[in-house]
Amino acid sequence: MKNIIILGSTGSIGRSTLEVVKQVQERYKVTGLAAGSNLSLLREQVRKFKPDVVSVKEGLAAKFRQMLPRSIKVEVVSGTEGLEKVATLPQGEMVVSALVGGVGLLPTLAAIRAGKNIALANKECLVMAGEMIMAEAEKGGIKVLPIDSEHSAIFQCLVGHRKDDLRRIILTASGGPFLTYSQKKMTAVTPEMALAHPNWQMGKKVSIDSATLMNKGLEVIEAHYLFGVPVKQIEVYIHPQSSIHAFVEYIDGSLIAQLSYPDMKVPIAYALSYPERLPVSAPRLNLLEIEKLTFLAPDRQRFPALDLAYRAIQEGGGLPIVLSAANEVAVEAFLERRLSFTQIAEIIERVMSSYNRKEPQTLDVILEIDRWGREKAEGLIKNL
Amino acid sequence: MKNIIILGSTGSIGRSTLEVVKQVQERYKVTGLAAGSNLSLLREQVRKFKPDVVSVKEGLAAKFRQMLPRSIKVEVVSGTEGLEKVATLPQGEMVVSALVGGVGLLPTLAAIRAGKNIALANKECLVMAGEMIMAEAEKGGIKVLPIDSEHSAIFQCLVGHRKDDLRRIILTASGGPFLTYSQKKMTAVTPEMALAHPNWQMGKKVSIDSATLMNKGLEVIEAHYLFGVPVKQIEVYIHPQSSIHAFVEYIDGSLIAQLSYPDMKVPIAYALSYPERLPVSAPRLNLLEIEKLTFLAPDRQRFPALDLAYRAIQEGGGLPIVLSAANEVAVEAFLERRLSFTQIAEIIERVMSSYNRKEPQTLDVILEIDRWGREKAEGLIKNL
Repeated sequence: MKNIIILGSTGSIGRSTLEVVKQVQERYKVTGLAAGSNLSLLREQVRKFKPDVVSVKEGLAAKFRQMLPRSIKVEVVSGTEGLEKVATLPQGEMVVSALVGGVGLLPTLAAIRAGKNIALANKECLVMAGEMIMAEAEKGGIKVLPIDSEHSAIFQCLVGHRKDDLRRIILTASGGPFLTYSQKKMTAVTPEMALAHPNWQMGKKVSIDSATLMNKGLEVIEAHYLFGVPVKQIEVYIHPQSSIHAFVEYIDGSLIAQLSYPDMKVPIAYALSYPERLPVSAPRLNLLEIEKLTFLAPDRQRFPALDLAYRAIQEGGGLPIVLSAANEVAVEAFLERRLSFTQIAEIIERVMSSYNRKEPQTLDVILEIDRWGREKAEGLIKNL
Repeated sequence: MKNIIILGSTGSIGRSTLEVVKQVQERYKVTGLAAGSNLSLLREQVRKFKPDVVSVKEGLAAKFRQMLPRSIKVEVVSGTEGLEKVATLPQGEMVVSALVGGVGLLPTLAAIRAGKNIALANKECLVMAGEMIMAEAEKGGIKVLPIDSEHSAIFQCLVGHRKDDLRRIILTASGGPFLTYSQKKMTAVTPEMALAHPNWQMGKKVSIDSATLMNKGLEVIEAHYLFGVPVKQIEVYIHPQSSIHAFVEYIDGSLIAQLSYPDMKVPIAYALSYPERLPVSAPRLNLLEIEKLTFLAPDRQRFPALDLAYRAIQEGGGLPIVLSAANEVAVEAFLERRLSFTQIAEIIERVMSSYNRKEPQTLDVILEIDRWGREKAEGLIKNL
């Protein structure tokens, strides 16, 4: 029985994690849940999984307590402090870090410092503070196991092989819903169109990031930190069938690849149970039913977000933080129809270009750069 | 510096092995070579690699000695005894077992008993005596590392993962030159047509076995013994591009695959250097240049050899020995135009059906069944 904590339990990854836990109930006890304002779903989760502590959005604790029957013994906390309390619960052994965006950084770091192993879905925390997070994890002997399907794939293609023999990593991208759109057609994309991902069921932020390819850019940075591989050895291929999630190429010309049906339960289960595997009930990939697997180079003109991410990590310093912060604000603005689809990358580029390069060495500086990036992006969007 | 011995040095695998060795000269010393009657090529190899001992076909030792300049210090031996002498040279650490057909059994077994690690290309020895070979290897703490590209792929997809979590193995087959031929058209196939493999450069026997799919059948049996996986968990997919060499599927729905350009230097180098990899210079697989990867189920009507192999290993006893022996004789007869292409499987089937099921427990019985299978096949071919 492993005690797990789920940060972001009402989000897409959180819900899939609980589905996996339900399938193998005898192995996991959910001891803490953190959500935002989706209280009705959280109530259902509390009833089913009986955590010791739950955290909700600032100001909603009392309301949520009232929504629960008296018979349920659970401590309800809220806000940043509540999140950190859940992330560091003494009885928790593993924390599933599945909050969306930069808000995931502090609780993930707190969990690592409290000695918890991490199943990581929140890529922004690595984009913002990858060096700090990996250094703290190493210091504490903490495992950071990826939940992202591509990083789970890379992880699975690295185990058993010598990292000295690695030549490069290839992350695949479905290409999103606009793979074949002309530049002109892309200016007229609506949030509804961008949210309709062809292969994966995901939350809103990740869906938009997938449509711009920023998601893949963030994943390149995530892979760089998770596996300690220079960015110039990490490539992106478009693979519209989303069957192969990543390749690792070795110096002898061998490539190891991981495939699965595009269902997040597969990488979630692996992160929870590594080095074992769980017999999760997810659809199985049937290669005989797939017409073909294809690969192409991403169109860097139509999807400028990818190069922005490469530029951010290659120039380094605080630029990845700025990238992530501006992206988050721009995606939000696009979802609220204050920004067009193609303007997302334009805003990020402008924020990055006006960044004055303060080196992020402490958590305070990181948070300051993050705040700066968000405000700068908001300002630019308002003045459009 | 690792001392290696190559059995079958003038064959396709032997030549590729020497190419690899030449590329990484500082790592390997070739201490023994065994060939048949291609004396001019063997002379070249002896000049270049300076082995201590070489073995040639029975009766050719004196002739070969005369072909060599006096300055070359090498012991020349011949025949079955010579082969065994080379296979068990005290200074040899690893034996590359790359003879073609059943003749590989005795020297491979001798090498294992003499404590040599094996890089195995000769699949027939496992088909004939898989249990005995793997038991002897285990007893002696001997590594049997596959050279066959599919088995090298499986091996690479298993390292780092738990065998308990394995669901099935999928071996891929190019489908050979007659993938799209009608049954009728296949009756008119000539040796020249069958030897023209679309993707791989191979020896004659393996090329014909690839064209009938018997090669894949033998590989299923080989995989069964090498990895200790029941045959019902081993499947075959046709994959005309020969980019992915095998998949291992795990219980969570993950598949791990290995890919490379179809060049035998890649798996040979891995077998020689495992757990390290060598920077071999072989063409690199460029997925962006490949139009597509496709998979289909093999046509078991047009390629009956595959089911004959499954039947042989499932019924067990001496039947795999009979299968391999009859196949070898039938392929030889086809190459000599004494048999049509489609008659190869017919002969094997008839020999298998008339086999009286003596259990192969000792080497003598195995060799007796092998002899019986060959004689039976020869008799049937003569009476056609």
